[in-house]
Amino acid sequence: MSGSPFEWIDEQARVRRRAGLVRTLRPRPADSPLLDLAGNDYLGLARHPEVTEAAASAARTWGAGATGSRLVSGSTELHAELERELAEFCGFESALVFSSGYAANLAAVTALAPHGSLVVSDAGNHASLIDGCRLARGTTQVVAHADPDAVRKALGTHAGVAVVVSDTVFSVDGDAAPLTGLAAACREFGAALLVDDAHGLGVLGDGGRGAPHAVGLAGAPDVVTTVTLSKSLGSQGGAVLGPAHVIDHLVNAARTFIFDTGLAPAAAGAALAALRLLRREPERATRARGVATTLHERLTAEGLEAVRPDAAVVSVRASSPERAVRWAADCREAGLAVGCFRPPSVPDGISRLRLTARADLTDGQLDRAVRLIIEARR
Amino acid sequence: MSGSPFEWIDEQARVRRRAGLVRTLRPRPADSPLLDLAGNDYLGLARHPEVTEAAASAARTWGAGATGSRLVSGSTELHAELERELAEFCGFESALVFSSGYAANLAAVTALAPHGSLVVSDAGNHASLIDGCRLARGTTQVVAHADPDAVRKALGTHAGVAVVVSDTVFSVDGDAAPLTGLAAACREFGAALLVDDAHGLGVLGDGGRGAPHAVGLAGAPDVVTTVTLSKSLGSQGGAVLGPAHVIDHLVNAARTFIFDTGLAPAAAGAALAALRLLRREPERATRARGVATTLHERLTAEGLEAVRPDAAVVSVRASSPERAVRWAADCREAGLAVGCFRPPSVPDGISRLRLTARADLTDGQLDRAVRLIIEARR
Repeated sequence: MSGSPFEWIDEQARVRRRAGLVRTLRPRPADSPLLDLAGNDYLGLARHPEVTEAAASAARTWGAGATGSRLVSGSTELHAELERELAEFCGFESALVFSSGYAANLAAVTALAPHGSLVVSDAGNHASLIDGCRLARGTTQVVAHADPDAVRKALGTHAGVAVVVSDTVFSVDGDAAPLTGLAAACREFGAALLVDDAHGLGVLGDGGRGAPHAVGLAGAPDVVTTVTLSKSLGSQGGAVLGPAHVIDHLVNAARTFIFDTGLAPAAAGAALAALRLLRREPERATRARGVATTLHERLTAEGLEAVRPDAAVVSVRASSPERAVRWAADCREAGLAVGCFRPPSVPDGISRLRLTARADLTDGQLDRAVRLIIEARR
Repeated sequence: MSGSPFEWIDEQARVRRRAGLVRTLRPRPADSPLLDLAGNDYLGLARHPEVTEAAASAARTWGAGATGSRLVSGSTELHAELERELAEFCGFESALVFSSGYAANLAAVTALAPHGSLVVSDAGNHASLIDGCRLARGTTQVVAHADPDAVRKALGTHAGVAVVVSDTVFSVDGDAAPLTGLAAACREFGAALLVDDAHGLGVLGDGGRGAPHAVGLAGAPDVVTTVTLSKSLGSQGGAVLGPAHVIDHLVNAARTFIFDTGLAPAAAGAALAALRLLRREPERATRARGVATTLHERLTAEGLEAVRPDAAVVSVRASSPERAVRWAADCREAGLAVGCFRPPSVPDGISRLRLTARADLTDGQLDRAVRLIIEARR
């Protein structure tokens, strides 16, 4: 036989081009002049000298890589220290660090949903939770977004092990999950609650201790949380937090833990430094939320349709994928980086600009950002 | 309802304890006195000053984290530079860097196996390839280990898009896949070949250019390779290498690329420095292979049952999981770290010690390693 085995890829590319949905990478220089409202560095710590020096020092002390699986040669005392402090800060008994939040979510969902179990998954969940559901041996039921009654109904159909899975703050629109209602539904049916606090850690709760801490669920015997080290903590990686026996279970059962190289020491060191900084400067969390609220108020006052932010993400609606792309491109040309979310990255097909508040944005930068977004408006 | 939703976890833990299969983390200090034959730092670069200084410098220049998805704010010129040099070194047109090899494999398999396609997967493949198969929309057929005829037979049952997936060097036993035979089988049926060169890069091929390069498959229009940055390159991360249109497809379609934070700059910088070092010192690859061959020869001369190494992994058979654990523990007590692979981490249920050759092991260290393994033998 002849012909390329990838002809179907070229056909898909043509379809994407026609639909205006081609994604391209735009590598940024180290000294980018853009004002950044696109990244998830909510507390402005990714470039904080204490954090970058901790990365540098960890690479020197521990090596550039972990050299193996955490179960073979890849666990250092630095990983253990980070796990202890992260668990303690967020109010959980135990923590386990992964090379990414994506890997942490795959691990948590698959390890908590054995054969014969039910996974109840919010329709707006992040791709990594969805992939976790697809990899899990249990059966998944997707339920309406942010709806404890829908969760109750799903749990009522099942006898046996069940876990309810939800983001705490949804990445696309920045809205919060009804955690208290979800926990109540879980407890009625003896189900576990697994939440992804990727966008809550560092922003929500007392001093940024996260969404579960904010509603009194941190450390509960039936609650497991995942977080990322790559957003508020300005580094890379993820973690699962929960009761010690659940964390031990992950060490023994989670494939993305067992078969992955441990997180690089530089990333572990940076995350630990960022955590300590946040503990010392809890006002960063308050400031990130305040910036988001201000952004939302000022954009809606100008007639834009934006979702009221529950954390540090502000989502502004666009009328089409093409207009969203054009709007974001015009902002960029004027010196402002914003996120542009469109199909297939959005669950509901609605395109939007996604703005992230940062604790270190000055009032002047905020003024400028709002002005540029309005001027580029379409 | 009451009771813990995790009672089933405690029951599983009891079963594991009874079977002697409990895994625990053993964090190592920065100045561990152990001689390391457990990690995958095949070229001894993880602690090379040029590599760790590159990590430190990248963290300072670019920040501790990438701050977002590669498609939003997470692509830096450093990522692009690494991708260019990695593709060029391995002989491929294009490359795409991920936060881990696991993520790269999930991306490659899922993006190359659309709905209606067939994935032919070697029975000995790494967990990340298996999870990729389980996430892919196509149908997977698992075939006998390292058997091009079995691949042929599977491909013969299917009309339409097909991809054959295999490790180049299998992690557990260190044996190589019959790449030339697999490529021939693929070409007979117009299928694509996707290989994971995690344990080949830096060890096999001219100057460590990897297994596909060694057999003339690098850069072929129907071949895609994944690599890790966390083994021979001493850092963290993974990459997919292939024709440019395939890499563009991944940028647009691979969920573990689109929805993951970009690789931390420190890891990208370290991997780039390691790659340049390898280019300058190609003898490191030769030395790693030589050390593996010597290890194998000397252990089998002592009557141990070991697989002839095709790269830098030497697998020594143990008679039971308990004995493997005890053997490894006794080696450790005597000052030697070795890997201990046992169910469920091994596809065939056979427990073994897994030794890794490192290019920077001295002859004295090799002598000592062999002596300690023999003395601790059970």
